[in-house]
Amino acid sequence: MKVCRRATFNAAHRLYRKDWSDEKNLSIFGKCSNPNFHGHNYTLEVWIEGEIDQETGYLIDLKIVKDLINEEVQERFDHRNLNLDCPEFANLNPTAENIAVVIWDLLRKRLDPKYGLSIKLWETQNNIIVYDGK
Amino acid sequence: MKVCRRATFNAAHRLYRKDWSDEKNLSIFGKCSNPNFHGHNYTLEVWIEGEIDQETGYLIDLKIVKDLINEEVQERFDHRNLNLDCPEFANLNPTAENIAVVIWDLLRKRLDPKYGLSIKLWETQNNIIVYDGK
Amino acid sequence: MKVCRRATFNAAHRLYRKDWSDEKNLSIFGKCSNPNFHGHNYTLEVWIEGEIDQETGYLIDLKIVKDLINEEVQERFDHRNLNLDCPEFANLNPTAENIAVVIWDLLRKRLDPKYGLSIKLWETQNNIIVYDGK
Amino acid sequence: MKVCRRATFNAAHRLYRKDWSDEKNLSIFGKCSNPNFHGHNYTLEVWIEGEIDQETGYLIDLKIVKDLINEEVQERFDHRNLNLDCPEFANLNPTAENIAVVIWDLLRKRLDPKYGLSIKLWETQNNIIVYDGK
Amino acid sequence: MKVCRRATFNAAHRLYRKDWSDEKNLSIFGKCSNPNFHGHNYTLEVWIEGEIDQETGYLIDLKIVKDLINEEVQERFDHRNLNLDCPEFANLNPTAENIAVVIWDLLRKRLDPKYGLSIKLWETQNNIIVYDGK
Amino acid sequence: MKVCRRATFNAAHRLYRKDWSDEKNLSIFGKCSNPNFHGHNYTLEVWIEGEIDQETGYLIDLKIVKDLINEEVQERFDHRNLNLDCPEFANLNPTAENIAVVIWDLLRKRLDPKYGLSIKLWETQNNIIVYDGK
Repeated sequence: MKVCRRATFNAAHRLYRKDWSDEKNLSIFGKCSNPNFHGHNYTLEVWIEGEIDQETGYLIDLKIVKDLINEEVQERFDHRNLNLDCPEFANLNPTAENIAVVIWDLLRKRLDPKYGLSIKLWETQNNIIVYDGK
Repeated sequence: MKVCRRATFNAAHRLYRKDWSDEKNLSIFGKCSNPNFHGHNYTLEVWIEGEIDQETGYLIDLKIVKDLINEEVQERFDHRNLNLDCPEFANLNPTAENIAVVIWDLLRKRLDPKYGLSIKLWETQNNIIVYDGK
Repeated sequence: MKVCRRATFNAAHRLYRKDWSDEKNLSIFGKCSNPNFHGHNYTLEVWIEGEIDQETGYLIDLKIVKDLINEEVQERFDHRNLNLDCPEFANLNPTAENIAVVIWDLLRKRLDPKYGLSIKLWETQNNIIVYDGK
Repeated sequence: MKVCRRATFNAAHRLYRKDWSDEKNLSIFGKCSNPNFHGHNYTLEVWIEGEIDQETGYLIDLKIVKDLINEEVQERFDHRNLNLDCPEFANLNPTAENIAVVIWDLLRKRLDPKYGLSIKLWETQNNIIVYDGK
Repeated sequence: MKVCRRATFNAAHRLYRKDWSDEKNLSIFGKCSNPNFHGHNYTLEVWIEGEIDQETGYLIDLKIVKDLINEEVQERFDHRNLNLDCPEFANLNPTAENIAVVIWDLLRKRLDPKYGLSIKLWETQNNIIVYDGK
Repeated sequence: MKVCRRATFNAAHRLYRKDWSDEKNLSIFGKCSNPNFHGHNYTLEVWIEGEIDQETGYLIDLKIVKDLINEEVQERFDHRNLNLDCPEFANLNPTAENIAVVIWDLLRKRLDPKYGLSIKLWETQNNIIVYDGK
């Protein structure tokens, strides 16, 4: 069984590698490499896999997951510039794929190992990522 | 291949164990244990796994699934109080997890064993459950 | 110009008049009069009409509207039974129409008279109410 | 890891087998076999499975997937009659299941074998298909 | 105060004037004039304006509106070809604008004159019409 | 009658007045004044009011509106930093209210005066603006 908590955060970013020229960044990442950044409303689903606790009827109390997302994801990334404000992306290109990996790693450290974890991340209504640590 | 039929039902419930004190119910389930109940618009996706029938081009006629959901889920739970009106939850805490298990069991009995079955249940837009019988 | 803040609350209710017999309640309100209640995820849009403050560029700071909705609507009605827990509906049938009127009245008292106010309330994805005090 | 690109197309179709009588088509497919067709706004999600390219931080550039969907799906099926205009369905009943198989086959031929591929197709908000080639 | 009931119907159509050449139809209506039709999932909101009935707390029983939409709109247009199957469009180009006018006229005839009526019609998620009879 | 075309654009911004200290900007605009910007997926609905052209059955060809939105809004603001890249906001705080006014002004200049124009702009799923030039 899997349970999910959904949340959102709003951030600026640009796709950019410091070790590439501006021309190469532009040729690979197009308008997503705009030097002055652009931004998104990210929507995040955090999926926890496990078994129902027969005592409570919960797989996990989703309030705990809500608070965990707030502490690890929203406090860190909401209303921030991923490239400039967030050390996680100081040397990592903040593609949706890499954002999903970073979020998964942050949540995995805080979650009891008995639970499975996967992440679904919407960058726009048309671009979506799923990551489960593999 | 999997096909899905989506449906909704509206119900009242409270999270509550009869064998716990009101204080313990409140400390574990918080506002979800409000003695006079609260409620939700539940959204249900019923996913059937199988192979395409080469004659019809259907995996299964979704009208059959629609009718099955109506008989087993909507007739039973729509515009009801899960705790008071539904014997399925007389001794089972109606968490979203347990509701998903109950629905899966009800549908599994009615569905040809050649089909796989999984359930996705939204309690709110932010809280979601997936259950496939395992 | 109008600005809107959206919020949700989850509540139980039944459509019911104390001064009618159960039969009459059932004949008029159908399954919505189920004696043990049912419930909904209500979605609320609060629309404020006014002019842009040239200093801030805001019509109104939507954080103020968010907090106002929390205090006046969510603290009052979320995870509650409208009929039993909420004095506003002690003698008022909690139809979506009446809920919209009650919410509008609660917010109107708290909002500077220079602003216009209207309310949009979804009881389900298919049933919607708009009320502006007239 | 999986990434998804979402797109839409609008088409007419009827469910119909040429080798069946009109009566049999009607008895099996009901109103979906209306001789003069009906239609849908199809929503398509194309999911690509693979590994992050450490150089770009992309699993795959979703612009490539967007263009591929445009060439193989939208140019072919958008604003078309699936039964009359599309040779893919000349002898194949255009059920949502068969449409998903046809789209998967079209995309699979164009996609590097190192990527996994699955398709999610909404025929309506209530009827959904998932297909991954198995 | 206004209340709304939402419903959907799925239909085929083409934009086409009989008194124009195929070339002219194509030059004005583009791919929407495809001779073999295309189709849409139409979403309809029917908005009724009036006053709350103090006895019931309803502006109007939305079940009546639901049934009215079913009789006048869904029975007529769902799973139909608007151009070929529906006399309303025998000599009227079935643009979303004209569909909205036809639906408004059908419902207006059936609705008590004390109520105001407006229609919101989605042809796709990006194309929307509002009509109130003026 | 009104018709609408919906579109999206993704941009970075910060709420900020140059003539205020950083402290004052922070005290009024909170996390929205983060010096390194944040961003949003903006959703825009452009509503045109007018009469049906009896020849075409269109109020206006929505393809024209789509192209107009692309030229005046998406080319200008999509994947841009509103504060740094867009002269429209060089001396104007890019609140959602001001963005709506700027878009309305841009479109109004291009639209035949016989049409009415209003704008609906979602900054997030919870924050919405409507502006019609008054």
